[in-house]
Amino acid sequence: MSKSFDLALAGFGHVGRSFFRLIQDKAAFIENRYGLHLTLQVILEQGGGLLSASPSGLNDPEIADLPLAELRSHPLWKPGLDFAQAIARLTPGVLVLATPSSLKTGEPGLSLTRLALHSGWHVVTADKAPLVVDFSGLRRKAEQKRLCLKFSGATAAALPALDVGLYCLAGSEISLMEGILNGTTNFILTEMGKGRSYDACLEEAKARGIAEPDPSLDVSGRDTAIKLLLIARAIWESDITLEDIAIEGIAQLPLHFVRRATREGKKVKLIGRLERETKELARGEKKEKQGKIYASVQPQAIDSNHPLFNVDGTNKAIAFTTDTMGIVSVSGGKSDPRGAAAALLKDILHIST
Amino acid sequence: MSKSFDLALAGFGHVGRSFFRLIQDKAAFIENRYGLHLTLQVILEQGGGLLSASPSGLNDPEIADLPLAELRSHPLWKPGLDFAQAIARLTPGVLVLATPSSLKTGEPGLSLTRLALHSGWHVVTADKAPLVVDFSGLRRKAEQKRLCLKFSGATAAALPALDVGLYCLAGSEISLMEGILNGTTNFILTEMGKGRSYDACLEEAKARGIAEPDPSLDVSGRDTAIKLLLIARAIWESDITLEDIAIEGIAQLPLHFVRRATREGKKVKLIGRLERETKELARGEKKEKQGKIYASVQPQAIDSNHPLFNVDGTNKAIAFTTDTMGIVSVSGGKSDPRGAAAALLKDILHIST
Repeated sequence: MSKSFDLALAGFGHVGRSFFRLIQDKAAFIENRYGLHLTLQVILEQGGGLLSASPSGLNDPEIADLPLAELRSHPLWKPGLDFAQAIARLTPGVLVLATPSSLKTGEPGLSLTRLALHSGWHVVTADKAPLVVDFSGLRRKAEQKRLCLKFSGATAAALPALDVGLYCLAGSEISLMEGILNGTTNFILTEMGKGRSYDACLEEAKARGIAEPDPSLDVSGRDTAIKLLLIARAIWESDITLEDIAIEGIAQLPLHFVRRATREGKKVKLIGRLERETKELARGEKKEKQGKIYASVQPQAIDSNHPLFNVDGTNKAIAFTTDTMGIVSVSGGKSDPRGAAAALLKDILHIST
Repeated sequence: MSKSFDLALAGFGHVGRSFFRLIQDKAAFIENRYGLHLTLQVILEQGGGLLSASPSGLNDPEIADLPLAELRSHPLWKPGLDFAQAIARLTPGVLVLATPSSLKTGEPGLSLTRLALHSGWHVVTADKAPLVVDFSGLRRKAEQKRLCLKFSGATAAALPALDVGLYCLAGSEISLMEGILNGTTNFILTEMGKGRSYDACLEEAKARGIAEPDPSLDVSGRDTAIKLLLIARAIWESDITLEDIAIEGIAQLPLHFVRRATREGKKVKLIGRLERETKELARGEKKEKQGKIYASVQPQAIDSNHPLFNVDGTNKAIAFTTDTMGIVSVSGGKSDPRGAAAALLKDILHIST
């Protein structure tokens, strides 16, 4: 039984282009293994978009490498393409969101997501911003319409943080989640562990393309906090906000702090931490009530017994403490655009089955 | 929308009893979170079984602690209970298999599984033997009947090896899986790393209840091989058999082998390894053909870059090398009967959604 999905891709930067290549490279594999046929119908970018003119969709491999200016002179380019109109003429499928939206307004991703859900489209997103700005509104909308809103790619690219928490640990109750969720800061801290200063390590991270020219989102701990927020909302169905998270970053972290940790056989890590109180109820009452959530991002010296002790360099990981399954940690998963694209594809496959 | 499943539990040893307690402890949580109501209708043991006489099923907490002799004089005990007859009068639900079956014949679990599938029941199993003896027959039967046959609990208890490989990495292609899948041997090797002899470490493992009185299944590497086999069959849909796995255990492993590794900054681990050749096809052909599988169980000295380097003591872990998501490792997960019971419950929850 073969199934098929029409796709609309919004955002044609590194992640969007990787996704475009990925579904071409894997078309045969996806059909054989999952019985799913994907057809990319729309690519939306600033100022317009490409609209497929054939049943096989947008699959000319050269598109992936066109600079934006040339994309805009492609024969299929429609200036000012109206997304609502474009998807209205298609069978509802999946909107793949790879836009870089504003963390303040959530735009342009937020409006696209709302529109897609309104029109009966599922949404998978690598763009965190719409979820930061209006998570509960989007989730309510998706539930009303019985649509999926998935965001593996927005929490930690290919590290399956949400899947492990929601699926692999189903039936257990998670009381604590601790994660190293940002590769840039973990790289800097790992290098500082070798005795180098914060500035020297940051420069190296920039030189190697690990840190962005403006690394403030990462080193301030905000990127970790945002991922933590999405994880708490997805796994605990909590409504905590960024303001509820005590955030301390690693900018200008003094080397002596790291040196002392090293001397004590410890390592400094930027730990995102979510802990939930479990309230014991009266005797006879079996269910433990869900209690208050304590959320923080903080550089911490952890010792070798800690499940995240050996997550070094640009690696990421998350450890879940559960009532019935013990501590389960998952680590690794590529952080590059192809890893994020693979997470988007995975979410689509989960929707289709 | 609440859903309900009738359950039949076969095998009332440590795992079966833990499962019995678990679904009682978690009844309210399972209803609230997953909208699922579970009713245990049958408990099957040697010589007969308990058959529920009320709509609420078998839920007297005292049953969990009754020695087998007293279970057999329980008012609901039916000597020689016929499983086929017992389930015939119920709405098809889920058979929970916690029997200790023979690895040679697969019995008694194999016949129970066949009967359940034949009668329209899903099966979740912590018992490996039926899957070792007739995996493809059971899977074919389940597919024909559109039923689920799940076995998280048979591969590594609460370590979500199958879920990560099949679900979290969906869409990626796995070329290599390396696991530390046996807690007893990992405990012995970890202790030997401190300079103690094999015999001394084995004795301690026995004294602490980690190793069974007859540890041969573990130390011979056979337990690891069996888990590897189930993982290969589930994730790669391969039909390899135990004979295809080169098995070397750790029995009487010379201490100097471990000492040399320690001197070199390495650790000796009993690694279960599954590698699949990827055959490059002719140019233009996009799909990589699935190649030959190389499977082995062997004590190996691994260095600190290996994703399993820090999996010590009774811990277990598995690392997946993929094409698009990099290396993803998952570790931990309780190995005790409650962990295995939690894995059974998880499989049931996955069936229900």
